[in-house]
Amino acid sequence: MDLNSNLDSGIKTGLLRTRTPLKELTNRVQNLQAKLQENSLDGALIIENMDLFYLCGSMQQGFLFVPAEGEPLYMVRRNFMRGKEESGWQNILPLKSFKQLPLYLKEYNKQPLQKIGLEFDVLPVKLYLRLQKLFPGVEFQDVSTILLEIRMVKSPYEVSFYRQAAKNSATVFRRIPELLQIGKPEITLSSEIEALNRQLGHQGMLRMRAFNAEMNTGHVYSGQSGCIGTFLDSCTGGRGTTAACPQGAGWKPLAPHEPVCVDFSTTYEGYILDETRVFSIGHLPPELQKAANVAREIQETLASQALPGALCGDLYQLAQKIAARYGLEDYFMGYGDNRVKFVGHGVGLCLDEFPVFGQASPHILQPGMVFALEPKFSFPQQGVVGLENVWVVTKTGLEKLTLIPDEPVVVPY
Amino acid sequence: MDLNSNLDSGIKTGLLRTRTPLKELTNRVQNLQAKLQENSLDGALIIENMDLFYLCGSMQQGFLFVPAEGEPLYMVRRNFMRGKEESGWQNILPLKSFKQLPLYLKEYNKQPLQKIGLEFDVLPVKLYLRLQKLFPGVEFQDVSTILLEIRMVKSPYEVSFYRQAAKNSATVFRRIPELLQIGKPEITLSSEIEALNRQLGHQGMLRMRAFNAEMNTGHVYSGQSGCIGTFLDSCTGGRGTTAACPQGAGWKPLAPHEPVCVDFSTTYEGYILDETRVFSIGHLPPELQKAANVAREIQETLASQALPGALCGDLYQLAQKIAARYGLEDYFMGYGDNRVKFVGHGVGLCLDEFPVFGQASPHILQPGMVFALEPKFSFPQQGVVGLENVWVVTKTGLEKLTLIPDEPVVVPY
Repeated sequence: MDLNSNLDSGIKTGLLRTRTPLKELTNRVQNLQAKLQENSLDGALIIENMDLFYLCGSMQQGFLFVPAEGEPLYMVRRNFMRGKEESGWQNILPLKSFKQLPLYLKEYNKQPLQKIGLEFDVLPVKLYLRLQKLFPGVEFQDVSTILLEIRMVKSPYEVSFYRQAAKNSATVFRRIPELLQIGKPEITLSSEIEALNRQLGHQGMLRMRAFNAEMNTGHVYSGQSGCIGTFLDSCTGGRGTTAACPQGAGWKPLAPHEPVCVDFSTTYEGYILDETRVFSIGHLPPELQKAANVAREIQETLASQALPGALCGDLYQLAQKIAARYGLEDYFMGYGDNRVKFVGHGVGLCLDEFPVFGQASPHILQPGMVFALEPKFSFPQQGVVGLENVWVVTKTGLEKLTLIPDEPVVVPY
Repeated sequence: MDLNSNLDSGIKTGLLRTRTPLKELTNRVQNLQAKLQENSLDGALIIENMDLFYLCGSMQQGFLFVPAEGEPLYMVRRNFMRGKEESGWQNILPLKSFKQLPLYLKEYNKQPLQKIGLEFDVLPVKLYLRLQKLFPGVEFQDVSTILLEIRMVKSPYEVSFYRQAAKNSATVFRRIPELLQIGKPEITLSSEIEALNRQLGHQGMLRMRAFNAEMNTGHVYSGQSGCIGTFLDSCTGGRGTTAACPQGAGWKPLAPHEPVCVDFSTTYEGYILDETRVFSIGHLPPELQKAANVAREIQETLASQALPGALCGDLYQLAQKIAARYGLEDYFMGYGDNRVKFVGHGVGLCLDEFPVFGQASPHILQPGMVFALEPKFSFPQQGVVGLENVWVVTKTGLEKLTLIPDEPVVVPY
């Protein structure tokens, strides 16, 4: 494999560095402001990297103050010059110390602040206590669900990044058959896929919002490896190379007639495209091939039913019903201890976004939502089959963003 | 470059999966218990991945309750079977729901709990408020500094992992000269280094403890790229491929006579070895070569003074003095806006551990501390030179753990 060869796309387009347009930032901030007003909040103080990037076009270290109305104020501790270059907002100030924060806000906001929104789902207690001291008498309220709900619906501008990520992902997945080799350790195959992704501009890391959730950039597991559970809320796991990072590819060598499951996330301008395909060296055992067909049937049925207004929880139950119809309910979305109770999840700047396609999910489909559907079956003795594609909701139903064929790819033994 | 070739070490040793010995876990827990008793705490409820791994040998999702005395209790939400396999502790219970937590603790602890330690530096507010509801009347106290201080001093068992990481890192760094090529994008070189690392068992991600701090697995920057600041507390940055991950390698092609700085972190059983070397295609400009020599002089001087009992803040000031003696104080550890006020940092399960070699650092060297010293100079028009090695404090001074020569490596133009 020649890693130095320029692959067919990505590098050229990647040279065009993107700056989030002001119109886009304005829409996002106005969506947040409508919710702040609904909740009688005077503003929100945003700090988490991806919320910052979403609302500023920049994730330089600092705070974004979003007043209930008017332009936001970006206070940048580090790196100020880069924050100015990256963000479309005019009001940017250097933040030398925490103590400046209340002084800046006092000057910026006409009315004294009484209720401020914070990201309680990610903000550490230590920082929260510090903010309480800096703003005596101010009431803080959680706005994390508001932020996640706003971010759940993507603009055409955002959707364009998944399209580019899908092209890059397709370029990489098309190279996988030639990389399969009996005896090659999973970790070696994983390293090759990671390198191909990276050369097309992958940011080299993946973000999850949930506390303690973490991912390397993708998982490769073969045969039984896929059924080893992890700490993650995922139906598949992988052995990994250490108990200090118990996920993804391990040292197991690839073997014939077993599913080699490649579950990789390609990024473009921060946006994540999550894609899974099954490969095998020599044909798959018939019962696994059958389950792979059922996974595709589940996908097609969900895709046809996923119209705006559909309840995500209903779609999950429909998936379970189809699995049961084929007697596969015990293997659907994990086996035993490893089972998860969802069949899809939003993808965006983080891998674990809204909507969730799970039993108790309150999410209702709307145009602009982007998510991964990943019907999978785990057979503890044999491995994992299934697939994962990314879709966007349009007015008339789902559009598939991922580009390559769904079928398991068999290379000659 | 043949990524499929097995490199000379790592893969075989990596096949031996390590389980943290019970004696090692016991020592760690006893160190924590001494501090809990000093602070009149009844116990600590540990949740963060690396604190869990350090105290359990496992980072499966859940809580570790460490009573002020006696054996700890590991309550595992997911994956219970794997937690049992990985952890050396006997007391392991499945945690089906949060509500079980107070019930388990009531049964486990003879005395009612009044004061419990939590990791305030990482625990999100939302989870904290939930714990407050679950444990009415209990006083929570921050034990994050206690944990970081205990983790700061490494055991011989832990040090053995840096030795293996150093071997792997040396294997990778020795391959870099053959990968250098005029016109190759930084990101391509980075992808190749990442792939080599990964094939030796790198976990595929790096951990930082500080809120919002995040790293891909290493940085490659050439010429001016190194001087582009980031949100990170680092004197070097890199353009990255997007404002959504503004760090490390970007699209800039390698050019002759400029420093190609490779700052990569190799992991082994979770432990991080941070190493930086400068390469160039054709000789470096004389002023950069001179600064590279000064960086080595700073390193050698600090290493000779870094005896047990030395104050880390004094060592930082000594480094600054040497830089000033050569008229290089304006370029030391960043330039202008990008400057940082430290010359080294602890490395362990996270990249940003204690001790810190900065102006106001309270840390005093003790045998067993492991850290990176990274004297670097940033020349805004030309790039970054310097180096980074990892050291362990012994009774008689520092032992260098990194293995390859310090000098910049020049390949023919």
